[in-house]
Amino acid sequence: MQYTAHINIMPLKELLDPQGKAVNSSLHNLGLSQIQHVRVGKHITLAVEAKDKAEAEMLVADACKKLLANQVMEAFDITITEG
Amino acid sequence: MQYTAHINIMPLKELLDPQGKAVNSSLHNLGLSQIQHVRVGKHITLAVEAKDKAEAEMLVADACKKLLANQVMEAFDITITEG
Repeated sequence: MQYTAHINIMPLKELLDPQGKAVNSSLHNLGLSQIQHVRVGKHITLAVEAKDKAEAEMLVADACKKLLANQVMEAFDITITEG
Repeated sequence: MQYTAHINIMPLKELLDPQGKAVNSSLHNLGLSQIQHVRVGKHITLAVEAKDKAEAEMLVADACKKLLANQVMEAFDITITEG
């Protein structure tokens, strides 16, 4: 069966996020001072062929650990949908 | 009130995504050939101070249009949660 995975990869809360800080300042310079605590990460979508949802989730977690996320600095979460 | 926004910014479907293609090939080289159609975008979280959810969404959409997303090449979607 075909599944779609949505993966969010974000810098760990304990770590500084210089890109987020830069975006935060730029937004304030543009007059959007109501915005705070910007953090920037990656969003990855992919299709995965697996016999059930559990297998799909396992394959995608494997991909995250092997390639997509750097677990020293980043945390990932995975949402699997059918089709 | 304080709201949290989760923003996904993805390359438009009509456009090639060279980063996604590279990740796709790398995953196949790692033996994860069940994975296809990888697309890589950005995930941004931020806190926004607004009087209601509609105002929060308007502010965040403004931030996306002015700075976060390049609408020629990218589409964004916004999810607002309380707190």
